[in-house]
Amino acid sequence: TTAVTWADGLAGDTRQQIQVIKDKAINDDLSYDIIESLTTEVGPRMVGTPAEKASVKWAVNKMKSLGFDKVWTEESEATLWQRGELDAQITAPYPQHVKALALGNSVGTNGETLSAEVVAFDNLDALKDAPAGSLENKIAFVTYQMERHRDGHGYGKAVGARVSGASEAAKKGAVGFIMRSVGTDTNRFAHTGVQMYQDDVKKIPALALSNPDADLLESMLTRDEPVTFSIKMDNGKTKSKTTTIANVIGEVTGSKHPEQVVTLGAHLDSWDVGTGAVDDGIGVGITLAAGHYLSQLEARPERTLRVILFAAEEIGLHGAKDYVEKHKNEMDNHVIGAEWDFGNGKIYELAPGVSEQSLEDMRAFAQLLAPLGVTMADTNNAKGQSDMSALGNAGQPAVNFNPDGSDYFDFHHTENDTLDKVDKAALKTNTAIYSMFALFATDSGVNFRN
Amino acid sequence: TTAVTWADGLAGDTRQQIQVIKDKAINDDLSYDIIESLTTEVGPRMVGTPAEKASVKWAVNKMKSLGFDKVWTEESEATLWQRGELDAQITAPYPQHVKALALGNSVGTNGETLSAEVVAFDNLDALKDAPAGSLENKIAFVTYQMERHRDGHGYGKAVGARVSGASEAAKKGAVGFIMRSVGTDTNRFAHTGVQMYQDDVKKIPALALSNPDADLLESMLTRDEPVTFSIKMDNGKTKSKTTTIANVIGEVTGSKHPEQVVTLGAHLDSWDVGTGAVDDGIGVGITLAAGHYLSQLEARPERTLRVILFAAEEIGLHGAKDYVEKHKNEMDNHVIGAEWDFGNGKIYELAPGVSEQSLEDMRAFAQLLAPLGVTMADTNNAKGQSDMSALGNAGQPAVNFNPDGSDYFDFHHTENDTLDKVDKAALKTNTAIYSMFALFATDSGVNFRN
Ligand SMILES: [Zn+2]
Ligand SMILES: [Zn+2]
Ligand SMILES: [Zn+2]
Ligand SMILES: [Zn+2]
Repeated sequence: TTAVTWADGLAGDTRQQIQVIKDKAINDDLSYDIIESLTTEVGPRMVGTPAEKASVKWAVNKMKSLGFDKVWTEESEATLWQRGELDAQITAPYPQHVKALALGNSVGTNGETLSAEVVAFDNLDALKDAPAGSLENKIAFVTYQMERHRDGHGYGKAVGARVSGASEAAKKGAVGFIMRSVGTDTNRFAHTGVQMYQDDVKKIPALALSNPDADLLESMLTRDEPVTFSIKMDNGKTKSKTTTIANVIGEVTGSKHPEQVVTLGAHLDSWDVGTGAVDDGIGVGITLAAGHYLSQLEARPERTLRVILFAAEEIGLHGAKDYVEKHKNEMDNHVIGAEWDFGNGKIYELAPGVSEQSLEDMRAFAQLLAPLGVTMADTNNAKGQSDMSALGNAGQPAVNFNPDGSDYFDFHHTENDTLDKVDKAALKTNTAIYSMFALFATDSGVNFRN
Repeated sequence: TTAVTWADGLAGDTRQQIQVIKDKAINDDLSYDIIESLTTEVGPRMVGTPAEKASVKWAVNKMKSLGFDKVWTEESEATLWQRGELDAQITAPYPQHVKALALGNSVGTNGETLSAEVVAFDNLDALKDAPAGSLENKIAFVTYQMERHRDGHGYGKAVGARVSGASEAAKKGAVGFIMRSVGTDTNRFAHTGVQMYQDDVKKIPALALSNPDADLLESMLTRDEPVTFSIKMDNGKTKSKTTTIANVIGEVTGSKHPEQVVTLGAHLDSWDVGTGAVDDGIGVGITLAAGHYLSQLEARPERTLRVILFAAEEIGLHGAKDYVEKHKNEMDNHVIGAEWDFGNGKIYELAPGVSEQSLEDMRAFAQLLAPLGVTMADTNNAKGQSDMSALGNAGQPAVNFNPDGSDYFDFHHTENDTLDKVDKAALKTNTAIYSMFALFATDSGVNFRN
């Protein structure tokens, strides 16, 4: 088969080209320069803002200037949510303002100040266990502290409270929901992120407090006096309106099988609070640089490389879902995909999600990454990070490149997600890995589906 | 002499008591608990705010409950400056909001939006060298990045721009002054701090940008297009009014020479942005704990220990100056003093400022600190940190205990100065050192003046 052919080393040209592209990427600043350009010339790219529209223009122009053969946008509609002014305070027994951020989709307080006593819970499960009606006219406070782990699995244990805490609290009668930020830092930044109201449950305001402010509130609660908290915020004015979003797509056209596409993904949108340098400026930088390097090869790869900068990832993978819908009839031609949407650390693992028959080829490719400190996982169930998982769930084979995520949640979804957080050395290595993968997948002839 | 007597080991009781008090402090949470109480029950204590008044009550009550024999306040008046709302933006070529803070004493923009082109300077000297009139209708931007050093001397090299940059810019015609924050971190917090307008120079708004935002502005300036910046802020509404401030003073009365006072100092006020846990909650915690430990000794020290919590240090040592004025007739009875107002690191050095004749005794005392990692400096010119330098300049001998200040300027004068930044282990050691010093100075009979 083709697969064995490649692993057997018969595709010597591809192998050599992979080395060439590795040397190029690892000595180049291109991906960093792209992130610098995006964060400087556009900045935060929250869905529905003028900067988000500017980011689409920026991306189209950047892809063209980088040598992509075809560049286009695919538009759709997404629900618009915009953050309003927020004032959050502990009002008794010791008044202090706190640093907080509304969670995505949170309603506001309609010009009123919501004030109520705080009841603390260790975690989401404890909140769910509260007796019915026990939170009438109370504000529920989940104190759970996210754990730090290299693979970021502390996020999964913490994020449930963010996604569904407000509705769970409302079911018990609560009038507001506050939580310790899903973050591993001790900086006085709150971490925002999406939350989802459940149907037929009252929508109550939902906030994340910075870790130091959650500490402060917990300290007050130790003093055996009622602690009251007030929230005034005017989010949600634009709720129920929609906004036009756009995936930006660029291709380096394959020389032999142009209809077969290898996808690299990242999301172009960001939260509004930082400049989205890490989340997901790094993904934009890596994937565009990989496309550029392939476009500059004298001998074009056989398959097409398609770089997809997804829209509206942060508010619920809207762009990815739209992509799958629009491209369902050509999904069989989606050979394999990988996304970068997980921080600034160095990749230590390649985790495949491919046919059993192609695993040997993937192992042969992984050998080329070994000098960069990458090993191959024993598992074979990867669906792709973030947006790419939507394509993975629609049948596209995938690879996850897993980086050291130890400090990612120090600045994730905060004002602190800025260019200086990009680790330049790790970025060069990671850019090389994605570029090598792009060439392997487009030019090896390996069938990752069968 | 008495001095030699002590160093010769004849004051064996004192020596033993010093060991007792060391063991007590190093195994106790008292200083931490005091900081927790101050930051939780009062929080930020900016001069002129209700919380500052609350802090005075808090301090009086805390001293009484800790066993001080006499507790009183000394009131005076200080000029009132209060921060207003601030909106700071880069408006062209790529509009982005930035994180910035007004410098202390800065005027506002009188309800208008000030907008002008930015001209960058590497440092204060470069700004001073600008040709006369060259900054007409411009905003001057000093980009200097503070250096990180253990002894914090990077601060001295950076802070000149903060203190006098606005007036120097105004002399050249500038309408606004912005600077990279005096700070060593890469967090998106601006560092505030006092600035002083020069007489007969136009007062222009003065801001510090967070380090990531200063990076952003510098990136924009590399693009060879005019960069414009806008400032709208309503500080200074209360300018030229005064406010009542109060030093809070507590004594553990000496058993033999009550009129001879050893002073320990810290400042009670803080900037408004953090909770002032480190600056200078730690000083409050250490000095009150030391007083408590002395008050609990069965045999009271011979001299009086006076703990002074100074008012309005942040806006210009107002409380310290008032103290010196009010106590000038008894300054000769001020035996020696030490302040804590330099961060959360472990003390590595004792730097004296005492009579030549008492140096041998100080060396003998320093030997007791050697197991705690403290060495004695070769110099003998210490005046005391911060407030205490006002007493030092009025003739009071002093000791500076120098801590590792490597990371102090990561959170100094930012929103990020919160309780979690207190290093509990270093705090215990430092509390022990101050307590040991307090006992040595009150009970050894050493004459530090002659
Ligand atoms: Zn992301
Ligand atoms: Zn995200
Ligand atoms: Zn201070
Ligand atoms: Zn200070």
